[in-house]
Amino acid sequence: MKKHNFYAGPSILPEYTKEKTAEAVLNFAGTGLSVMEVSHRSKEFVAVVDEAVALVKELLKVPEGYSVLFLQGGASLQFLMAPYNLMGLKAAYLNTGVWSKKAMKEAKFFGEVVEVASSADANFNYIPKQFDTPADASYLHYTSNNTIFGTKVNAPEANVPLVADMSSDIFSRPVDVAKHDLIYAGAQKNLGPSGATLVIVKDEALGKIDRVIPTMLDYRIHIQNESMFNTPSTLPVFACLQTLRWLKELGGVEAIEKINIEKAAVLYDEIDRNKLFQSTVPNKEDRSLMNVTFVMAPEFAELEKEFLDFATAKGMIGIKGHRSVGGFRASTYNAMPIESVQALVDTMQEFEKKH
Amino acid sequence: MKKHNFYAGPSILPEYTKEKTAEAVLNFAGTGLSVMEVSHRSKEFVAVVDEAVALVKELLKVPEGYSVLFLQGGASLQFLMAPYNLMGLKAAYLNTGVWSKKAMKEAKFFGEVVEVASSADANFNYIPKQFDTPADASYLHYTSNNTIFGTKVNAPEANVPLVADMSSDIFSRPVDVAKHDLIYAGAQKNLGPSGATLVIVKDEALGKIDRVIPTMLDYRIHIQNESMFNTPSTLPVFACLQTLRWLKELGGVEAIEKINIEKAAVLYDEIDRNKLFQSTVPNKEDRSLMNVTFVMAPEFAELEKEFLDFATAKGMIGIKGHRSVGGFRASTYNAMPIESVQALVDTMQEFEKKH
Repeated sequence: MKKHNFYAGPSILPEYTKEKTAEAVLNFAGTGLSVMEVSHRSKEFVAVVDEAVALVKELLKVPEGYSVLFLQGGASLQFLMAPYNLMGLKAAYLNTGVWSKKAMKEAKFFGEVVEVASSADANFNYIPKQFDTPADASYLHYTSNNTIFGTKVNAPEANVPLVADMSSDIFSRPVDVAKHDLIYAGAQKNLGPSGATLVIVKDEALGKIDRVIPTMLDYRIHIQNESMFNTPSTLPVFACLQTLRWLKELGGVEAIEKINIEKAAVLYDEIDRNKLFQSTVPNKEDRSLMNVTFVMAPEFAELEKEFLDFATAKGMIGIKGHRSVGGFRASTYNAMPIESVQALVDTMQEFEKKH
Repeated sequence: MKKHNFYAGPSILPEYTKEKTAEAVLNFAGTGLSVMEVSHRSKEFVAVVDEAVALVKELLKVPEGYSVLFLQGGASLQFLMAPYNLMGLKAAYLNTGVWSKKAMKEAKFFGEVVEVASSADANFNYIPKQFDTPADASYLHYTSNNTIFGTKVNAPEANVPLVADMSSDIFSRPVDVAKHDLIYAGAQKNLGPSGATLVIVKDEALGKIDRVIPTMLDYRIHIQNESMFNTPSTLPVFACLQTLRWLKELGGVEAIEKINIEKAAVLYDEIDRNKLFQSTVPNKEDRSLMNVTFVMAPEFAELEKEFLDFATAKGMIGIKGHRSVGGFRASTYNAMPIESVQALVDTMQEFEKKH
């Protein structure tokens, strides 16, 4: 039976990425050695990092004056590194869910954290849009996509630079990098396997804070050493490069955005049409293109377990919703083919007929 | 031509690890999905971490009361996490080279760092053995193997708990874990690909310091979450498990130690016999079993480049010495077959005949 991988992360990757990675685990760049067993300073591996950095810059149209890094520790370590490097006495955070809150927690070590707005009052099922950002905040932080709650955030208007956690939707839609002092993303959604962390940081934004920064947490150290201050996560970075090549070949971020909009529409339309189900995000413009969250309609609430079993039997993997929202979550990252989305829609319609 | 992989790290891994990893990149645990694209919380991946932790405990005879973690960031991040979690007003460090110095640098954020001894006076070509450790130090830190300088350090006698960076020789010889509050190791020598970091920490040693620890740097958080506070580096951890299985099958740490001693002896004997070369570590008991460093004898100094080219043409990879020592470095980690060591010895003898 064909399986459809709706995991929220680590999540579906292109066949190209899997094939090229499997090959390189056995024989990397014609060396006869595994990509796992060559020095990160070998010319073959340095070429991997250089090409990956160049493709990130090309695909996201990164302006001059920004550095692209591949680090470790995921977004969770960036929650700490961002304020360590960029926050003066105050920083502003938009609270759109669990990941925003985790980011705020680490910033509180360094000074005053201003929560400019929050959708906690409705279990984060919408994105606040009217708020003021203090002019003396070092930055405004936002989470561009909220995997758990199925919402997306467009870059807010603010009179201070932006910092964004784009872990779960980077490369899914264009981004105006120039508005940001920092963008970071764990690789394990649209980029590659977990264990690599993408960082895009404005060089000029660094070194302004009078604070001693531990070596490994200092972006300047990693910039000076071109992501090789310590041994980078070589195999995951190699896999990320394959996904970047795949995305470029496919037409880049603009091309994948169209596909993502189409895929999401197929699923949201079914959720809105099918009486058994309902979206957890009433405001359509706030709905994520990456994580489609939905629940049983109240009058069919008792069918939740039955639908989960029914869909699982049909090959749908990873569609159980996060415990804080319940119901279902279908993650439709870049590598997800529309056929898998259609298979889920078919399953929902079959289940509807059954009841 | 057969290649012989003498890289210092990332470095040679068992064929078993490479084959099983390549397989799982395409189809993991019969899921039909890549190990890169399944949730870290899936039952299949949780089983990977559980088995890896159990094998670490078995192979290193880890006593009760210790936790085994797979984190990210390599030893370089552990240089910071170790004092963050364990250091009170003072900590003691044995300085046996570059990596010890990097560890000391991070500890200085937290208090007084006492360098109990140093071999800097002889470019770290020996291990100091007579020194006193202040009784009020929170721990004595040492680097068990110095890749750059080709030396090894046995667990020092001290009246305080030990902390050890075992990145480059863990699983190569037995270790008395009970003497240590903390052992850490980047995976990329004897364990797996870079991007995973092994931590073995004594539970009782934690929580004694009155210091607020950022979430990602707090061992207790990672222990409570069984290495899944954030998404672990899933593909590297999977590969580490394969190496642990391979090592167990081979007879464990005691069995590999015998092989390592035999391999190193073949090479050191040749270096000591061959008039063209000399070891950089005069004291035999200080010589590393993992990284054999040697230079041209002074009267043949001008042959250095020629030998490097000669050996490279014979399939020897990664034998150029670190710039701070010069000459050559042949890393003979667990997975290195004795045939490769013999091939290098043959090459040295051929070169000798040529001159």
